[in-house]
Amino acid sequence: MITPTSPLQIPEPALLEQYGKQARLCATSNDQLSLVFSQIHPFDLVELEQLLEAVGWSRRPVRRVRKALTHSLLKVGLWRHDPRVPRLVGFARCTGDGVFEATVWDVAVHPRYQGNGLGQQMMTYVLEALKEMGTERVSLFADPGVVDFYQRQGWELEPEGHRCAFWYSS
Amino acid sequence: MITPTSPLQIPEPALLEQYGKQARLCATSNDQLSLVFSQIHPFDLVELEQLLEAVGWSRRPVRRVRKALTHSLLKVGLWRHDPRVPRLVGFARCTGDGVFEATVWDVAVHPRYQGNGLGQQMMTYVLEALKEMGTERVSLFADPGVVDFYQRQGWELEPEGHRCAFWYSS
Repeated sequence: MITPTSPLQIPEPALLEQYGKQARLCATSNDQLSLVFSQIHPFDLVELEQLLEAVGWSRRPVRRVRKALTHSLLKVGLWRHDPRVPRLVGFARCTGDGVFEATVWDVAVHPRYQGNGLGQQMMTYVLEALKEMGTERVSLFADPGVVDFYQRQGWELEPEGHRCAFWYSS
Repeated sequence: MITPTSPLQIPEPALLEQYGKQARLCATSNDQLSLVFSQIHPFDLVELEQLLEAVGWSRRPVRRVRKALTHSLLKVGLWRHDPRVPRLVGFARCTGDGVFEATVWDVAVHPRYQGNGLGQQMMTYVLEALKEMGTERVSLFADPGVVDFYQRQGWELEPEGHRCAFWYSS
């Protein structure tokens, strides 16, 4: 059970046209700022990697990032709206089978925009999108620093004694 | 680092034709038995669900299983060879992006065939196939009963303090 949050608002028609009919507004305390979640607005892969680098992850080859996005079940961008050049300020993606399992990766909100509930709204958006697809269960691997963040939102930590395990190809 | 195991043997040409050129033999102490890993031999979805039920999981609607398999990155069947009607005795599948991340689900060996190292050979086969695809990291959620099984094979438990978290749509 996810902790109830106010539902994300549907943006005006011009924004739906730019960001797709599944676009939703991300609430912010700054009235000058229009932030929009989109599943279809294309990513500039260099801008995406800069965002992920800004939250502390290492840069990855653009060619491999492109392939990974192509094979992802869901890609969500959080855009600082501009009619011509929106800026990417948040991101999340999921792999999965579209039915039983989805796994969330690469959740990021740019440091300049953190601390305003954007990350929580991002997860609300992601879970709604996966639910709409008919996904039964969503999983993720939380870093120590964000375990509380996910627990507060209703994620179950290691349910039924599950433990996560990793294997590295190199 | 995976614990070294003897490499899986390539089967004779007739079996490669039946099970695909990535087919490998699964070693067994029973000389009468020919067990083959395949990525291409088609599944009878009722037989697959019977196998998963035999290891204790609940039955799932065939239509949804079909969709989940279609969207999986890798499906591996372990077949008890028969030129006409091979029987499915083991299974594993992965979701993932084909580059950075793959996650293993539904690992099963039929109870009648357990305790002979088949599960370990299955994981060797799965990891080799993912490595060949260029996948960097493989993850799974281990039930309490199989944590040791994976650790013995070199899987890292909760590396860097990762914790697994789940969210259920219903």
